[in-house]
Amino acid sequence: MKLQIINGPNLNLLGKREKSIYGDTSFEPFFSSLQQQYPQLQLEYFQSNWEGAIIDKIHATGYEFDGIIINAGAYTHTSLAIGDAIAAVTTPVVEVHISNVHAREAFRHHSFLAKNCVGVIAGFGLNSYKLAIESFITEGTK
Amino acid sequence: MKLQIINGPNLNLLGKREKSIYGDTSFEPFFSSLQQQYPQLQLEYFQSNWEGAIIDKIHATGYEFDGIIINAGAYTHTSLAIGDAIAAVTTPVVEVHISNVHAREAFRHHSFLAKNCVGVIAGFGLNSYKLAIESFITEGTK
Amino acid sequence: MKLQIINGPNLNLLGKREKSIYGDTSFEPFFSSLQQQYPQLQLEYFQSNWEGAIIDKIHATGYEFDGIIINAGAYTHTSLAIGDAIAAVTTPVVEVHISNVHAREAFRHHSFLAKNCVGVIAGFGLNSYKLAIESFITEGTK
Amino acid sequence: MKLQIINGPNLNLLGKREKSIYGDTSFEPFFSSLQQQYPQLQLEYFQSNWEGAIIDKIHATGYEFDGIIINAGAYTHTSLAIGDAIAAVTTPVVEVHISNVHAREAFRHHSFLAKNCVGVIAGFGLNSYKLAIESFITEGTK
Amino acid sequence: MKLQIINGPNLNLLGKREKSIYGDTSFEPFFSSLQQQYPQLQLEYFQSNWEGAIIDKIHATGYEFDGIIINAGAYTHTSLAIGDAIAAVTTPVVEVHISNVHAREAFRHHSFLAKNCVGVIAGFGLNSYKLAIESFITEGTK
Amino acid sequence: MKLQIINGPNLNLLGKREKSIYGDTSFEPFFSSLQQQYPQLQLEYFQSNWEGAIIDKIHATGYEFDGIIINAGAYTHTSLAIGDAIAAVTTPVVEVHISNVHAREAFRHHSFLAKNCVGVIAGFGLNSYKLAIESFITEGTK
Amino acid sequence: MKLQIINGPNLNLLGKREKSIYGDTSFEPFFSSLQQQYPQLQLEYFQSNWEGAIIDKIHATGYEFDGIIINAGAYTHTSLAIGDAIAAVTTPVVEVHISNVHAREAFRHHSFLAKNCVGVIAGFGLNSYKLAIESFITEGTK
Amino acid sequence: MKLQIINGPNLNLLGKREKSIYGDTSFEPFFSSLQQQYPQLQLEYFQSNWEGAIIDKIHATGYEFDGIIINAGAYTHTSLAIGDAIAAVTTPVVEVHISNVHAREAFRHHSFLAKNCVGVIAGFGLNSYKLAIESFITEGTK
Amino acid sequence: MKLQIINGPNLNLLGKREKSIYGDTSFEPFFSSLQQQYPQLQLEYFQSNWEGAIIDKIHATGYEFDGIIINAGAYTHTSLAIGDAIAAVTTPVVEVHISNVHAREAFRHHSFLAKNCVGVIAGFGLNSYKLAIESFITEGTK
Amino acid sequence: MKLQIINGPNLNLLGKREKSIYGDTSFEPFFSSLQQQYPQLQLEYFQSNWEGAIIDKIHATGYEFDGIIINAGAYTHTSLAIGDAIAAVTTPVVEVHISNVHAREAFRHHSFLAKNCVGVIAGFGLNSYKLAIESFITEGTK
Amino acid sequence: MKLQIINGPNLNLLGKREKSIYGDTSFEPFFSSLQQQYPQLQLEYFQSNWEGAIIDKIHATGYEFDGIIINAGAYTHTSLAIGDAIAAVTTPVVEVHISNVHAREAFRHHSFLAKNCVGVIAGFGLNSYKLAIESFITEGTK
Amino acid sequence: MKLQIINGPNLNLLGKREKSIYGDTSFEPFFSSLQQQYPQLQLEYFQSNWEGAIIDKIHATGYEFDGIIINAGAYTHTSLAIGDAIAAVTTPVVEVHISNVHAREAFRHHSFLAKNCVGVIAGFGLNSYKLAIESFITEGTK
Repeated sequence: MKLQIINGPNLNLLGKREKSIYGDTSFEPFFSSLQQQYPQLQLEYFQSNWEGAIIDKIHATGYEFDGIIINAGAYTHTSLAIGDAIAAVTTPVVEVHISNVHAREAFRHHSFLAKNCVGVIAGFGLNSYKLAIESFITEGTK
Repeated sequence: MKLQIINGPNLNLLGKREKSIYGDTSFEPFFSSLQQQYPQLQLEYFQSNWEGAIIDKIHATGYEFDGIIINAGAYTHTSLAIGDAIAAVTTPVVEVHISNVHAREAFRHHSFLAKNCVGVIAGFGLNSYKLAIESFITEGTK
Repeated sequence: MKLQIINGPNLNLLGKREKSIYGDTSFEPFFSSLQQQYPQLQLEYFQSNWEGAIIDKIHATGYEFDGIIINAGAYTHTSLAIGDAIAAVTTPVVEVHISNVHAREAFRHHSFLAKNCVGVIAGFGLNSYKLAIESFITEGTK
Repeated sequence: MKLQIINGPNLNLLGKREKSIYGDTSFEPFFSSLQQQYPQLQLEYFQSNWEGAIIDKIHATGYEFDGIIINAGAYTHTSLAIGDAIAAVTTPVVEVHISNVHAREAFRHHSFLAKNCVGVIAGFGLNSYKLAIESFITEGTK
Repeated sequence: MKLQIINGPNLNLLGKREKSIYGDTSFEPFFSSLQQQYPQLQLEYFQSNWEGAIIDKIHATGYEFDGIIINAGAYTHTSLAIGDAIAAVTTPVVEVHISNVHAREAFRHHSFLAKNCVGVIAGFGLNSYKLAIESFITEGTK
Repeated sequence: MKLQIINGPNLNLLGKREKSIYGDTSFEPFFSSLQQQYPQLQLEYFQSNWEGAIIDKIHATGYEFDGIIINAGAYTHTSLAIGDAIAAVTTPVVEVHISNVHAREAFRHHSFLAKNCVGVIAGFGLNSYKLAIESFITEGTK
Repeated sequence: MKLQIINGPNLNLLGKREKSIYGDTSFEPFFSSLQQQYPQLQLEYFQSNWEGAIIDKIHATGYEFDGIIINAGAYTHTSLAIGDAIAAVTTPVVEVHISNVHAREAFRHHSFLAKNCVGVIAGFGLNSYKLAIESFITEGTK
Repeated sequence: MKLQIINGPNLNLLGKREKSIYGDTSFEPFFSSLQQQYPQLQLEYFQSNWEGAIIDKIHATGYEFDGIIINAGAYTHTSLAIGDAIAAVTTPVVEVHISNVHAREAFRHHSFLAKNCVGVIAGFGLNSYKLAIESFITEGTK
Repeated sequence: MKLQIINGPNLNLLGKREKSIYGDTSFEPFFSSLQQQYPQLQLEYFQSNWEGAIIDKIHATGYEFDGIIINAGAYTHTSLAIGDAIAAVTTPVVEVHISNVHAREAFRHHSFLAKNCVGVIAGFGLNSYKLAIESFITEGTK
Repeated sequence: MKLQIINGPNLNLLGKREKSIYGDTSFEPFFSSLQQQYPQLQLEYFQSNWEGAIIDKIHATGYEFDGIIINAGAYTHTSLAIGDAIAAVTTPVVEVHISNVHAREAFRHHSFLAKNCVGVIAGFGLNSYKLAIESFITEGTK
Repeated sequence: MKLQIINGPNLNLLGKREKSIYGDTSFEPFFSSLQQQYPQLQLEYFQSNWEGAIIDKIHATGYEFDGIIINAGAYTHTSLAIGDAIAAVTTPVVEVHISNVHAREAFRHHSFLAKNCVGVIAGFGLNSYKLAIESFITEGTK
Repeated sequence: MKLQIINGPNLNLLGKREKSIYGDTSFEPFFSSLQQQYPQLQLEYFQSNWEGAIIDKIHATGYEFDGIIINAGAYTHTSLAIGDAIAAVTTPVVEVHISNVHAREAFRHHSFLAKNCVGVIAGFGLNSYKLAIESFITEGTK
């Protein structure tokens, strides 16, 4: 089972950025621990601050991988193009957020991606990614 | 670890109701299988079509249980009183939805509960409840 | 043919309440006269000020009766949960109103129920209920 | 008792037009059957795609007939002028719709006519017209 | 003089709940002190988390008591049905709030009850109830 | 205890102006009766139709008096500058209204002052001022 | 000097229609009196309930007359096409209303015609037409 | 017959200010010419850039003069207090504008004064004032 | 191949009207040149300022012609009835505009017709009509 | 004559993506056929999922080519920066869409590009591009 | 070079008022230091809580000074009249704010003045005034 | 002191693009003159039409430089991701605009960046950049 994790803008700063919201861990060691916890999975990780690069990655993996886990950061709320990319590919996509976006500014409550995703997991810190992996593993997922 | 699952209006009809959206399984056998999968947890289940009964149940368990998993159905989108009840108690609460509410009517995109919850899990069928249980089990959540 | 009439909040005060809008007849004698006019029908009547009780009654009759006539009063405009209950059951439902809701405050112009009903009859006083009964009797309806 | 039925734009295409919404019967034979069912009534029928013609007809009958039954089609949602015409005349008017307008596009939920009418009957197919006739016949209507 | 105090959802948690907003006193001892301060009055107290129970209580007291003091909590902002109940009865009703709702979230600025009440008193802590009692006592009130 | 009452535009016409809304008493005799009822208080009264004069008066008394009672009339709904003045001073301010503003036009439902005040009292006629005085007197207010 | 008066829908009912708003005089005798008062002018009068007829009349007179006085009734608020017709022609147009449209329903506050007219005169009863004539006569107008 | 003309903010700059909109005549010589044209009238003129001064002037003349003609300039669109002053007095008030406000920015389309005035005259340059005088002179106005 | 061109209100003034927007050619000579350029086509032309006449023409040709090219002018933005007529008939319809409506007032950006048309061509002057003809000729359109 | 075709995000998936909306042809063979049909033109083709790349291309060709045909995909509705780029260059630009965007979700009805383009052609499948080429060829285009 | 600084409501309280937002310096000593730093300039300072006084000052200096620097405080967001005054005079005006208004409540994001000013400087504390002076000094400003 | 200037989309066209709005100077010579005027500063300049490149540059300099001056062009109004990048870094950022954005289209009035910046300077032509540099130099800035 091949799963692609895609992180969007400013998530390269995890552990450095607004720690009260995003915690003080950077993503790379967390990703390594995920790989150790799920040795049976082929996990890939990609981060970019560039909307076009994220679309390209969705195209590149979206017909071939078994699942995509995307935290598009601010693009979640502004990028219809990423939303369209998710609709265009055949791989199921799960949207995740580290923070509880519903407890933040109103413009973070709307997602251009969500309606084309399988589902959304938000608010569990880095654990949101792990729950998304579980959602692909567990049999019987909708 | 004691976890309370609370289901809101019309969820007693699961398996009978709009199967293309909600699937054809009723909740009770699913709940039994959860109890079998998590023998170490004390899982409780409560369903009501009555807003007041749901508030009472949040009050009754919200200072004593280790977690509440709530699918408030349509009350998610209309009940400020349930949202206030979640804010009032000390037990952490996770909001779940069977369907991907973001792919449905616009009035299902807003939740009065979410900002007072730890997080939200939506769109994974009955598996949403299981992911919520996992969110309480996994160490390091948020 | 079995028809259930469901009246929502404050309709127990008919004949006592804002008579210029709702008239000076209470519902019970009107219901008796309906039973006399339609001896061939099994007519049932239920009133509650409780949203949950109305949902329970829709569930209880909504797979078994031949029709439901509902005047949900103020819940018409605020209860997505009752709207969802109507969508969930298989019995056809007709929405009625005593007053012409379109000639009143703007917030009474929107119904959370109507889109899941067969149709709406509003503005004919208590006669609205009678027309709803006629709509179920007449062959070839819709 | 003299009743005028007024049909607005595109209703001359009934039976030809979007049959899944409007059914496959044209209005004329239905009108004949109404005349047969209600031999005691003087029923008149008028259809026009012209807003001005509809206003003229309301003026011509609105001081003289005992009732007007109007299905203004799309003009329901755009014609303040027809709404004003109904307010100007003394004959009571009932608004009808073949389809359940509340289950269709949002711009069909608002009526410029309704607040000046006795009431509204929507969603019962051609039967909506018959129920409107009944509303005029039944004693004690509002 | 008979006065009914009605408290809505989550107000049973006063003294336990969000103390920075609502203070650390529970309502019962405050109510006892009110009874002692106003021995000449017949003061009754009712609390419920159930919208329907609140409507029933308004109906039960709203033709018989000399005044109702209502803090409908979150239902203030969502319950048209309670607003209609207040309009339906003849006893004058005063709306009170412990916190200054205008200094909180925007959705707490609108009340479905206020327009049918005599007036509104908000922001004086538990003292809001006492001021409401004074409003009924003082001669010449409006 | 020193309390300043500030009345805004058109309140100099009390007793002459729209008597069905505002009553037929002018403010001066009412103020005299307040002084007699509360001999232990130093009560001051100021009225102006000028927004700037009201701001000046808030500045002049807002660091020195024990309380300000303000009925800013129409400026309640349009004057951010008066709202800012209340936020700027240290004396607690109570907003009052003679009429129940929530039962009037929608533009009277919003106050630019309220969020910076202790609380709001509206709808009790001239008695609203008296209740505001009581709110300052009663110990334990908020 | 040639002036064309154009009246829109329902204005043929003047004197019969909602007399508390529009008065009890029909337009024809008023028009005769205008002709007598202004013998030096060539005054023409046209009324239609048909939007197309009004546009045709504007085209027919809008390059040739010295002024057009239009009371488009309800079309004022819904007819972009009449607004465009006024923009298209070269004759100056004055918009008039019998009633004070700003004191009526909100949807009567917006005019699709006004921005293409010289000006607007509203609220003076039939006198509004006379003032419009004066506006054309007085030298130095705008 | 005594008529008060009241001009609001920036109208003291007439003839100096944005001449393409307001023309190149200052108000004083125009006022003199009005006095000459209407020797039988007692015409008074007042201009202020101060909202409070305008309210005071309305109070001072609003029970005594036979008519007030007001061009409140920008206050037309922001001053609820002036609107309330007009409602409070008994003298009839006519709102005038030099420019056609409907052809300018959207925020100039709404007036807080208009609904309390007899009527509105806008777009005729300084002639708007003269037409307003005519409206008071002509018998049978409204 | 039979194609009907329908022009709406004010388009009879082409060449006379607002030449900076619409150009200085009237439609008739342009239509003649189209007939010469496309001798193999049966081209028909119809213009009306009357909404009803346009609907009638759509009905008359909409089951029989191979295509309709409509420039409904201002009715594009206000006529749901024409939009419904296009939905009702079976002939494919192309919406055209001479000017680029998206570069004009906001109310010209929405079309009630477009969603029921094959497509829209706007901004190419009279050439828009020619491109619409090409769209019908070219094989493989859509 | 040199024409640049620019395709935006996800259009590289044409023929693979949501075929019911976009058809089953990829763009490259279509482009080849265009080159064959228009041997006299210098046609260039560019596609990118990157907003910045599209802006760069507009800059590179926008002072030098004779026309640009742009289908900016989702960026049509979100990219003010591309809209500004079109305004900045001197080459005329035509906006095209394969699908009829007006028959899709509401957020696809608004274009940030259109007001700076010559015109818009939408809904004709790949033929939209061909019509855009024709618009540049035909003499007399606007 | 003569520059007028105008401060609006509540800015007389600088140094006393909400120090976390506005700092703890009063304006007068700051103004003195400005005069020392710019001995070559004729700097004038005016503060008022009165909208009318601010308009009068703009009129008095707006044809004579070389520049006006205005911090209209709350009137920035509510005073169309001050905005109009700025448009009326010929002296260039720069709008300044001490705090970053864009990081505060939404109603502080809109300015009625800005569009008539040369530009806006906000968020630099008292330094905002100094930057505004620099903007007038620097040659080549816009 | 190290300051980074970042220019967003289309600003590479300065001097070529819409000269009436942006002037006829390109940025490079202006930047050279800035370096000459401020020899004591380390000034860096970066321009990109790519949102991702701008975010990368903010990350690269945002922990190391003493200040960032950003003119994000159209991305100011659409890029939440750039706004988040500014919030994420520790270097203070000043937002600048060449034109007075408040005097242009409404969609240019909102900035996604401003609330995370120190302040905003808009409307002074290229001088806006110089004033921003001054804001970093002047001691005592906020």
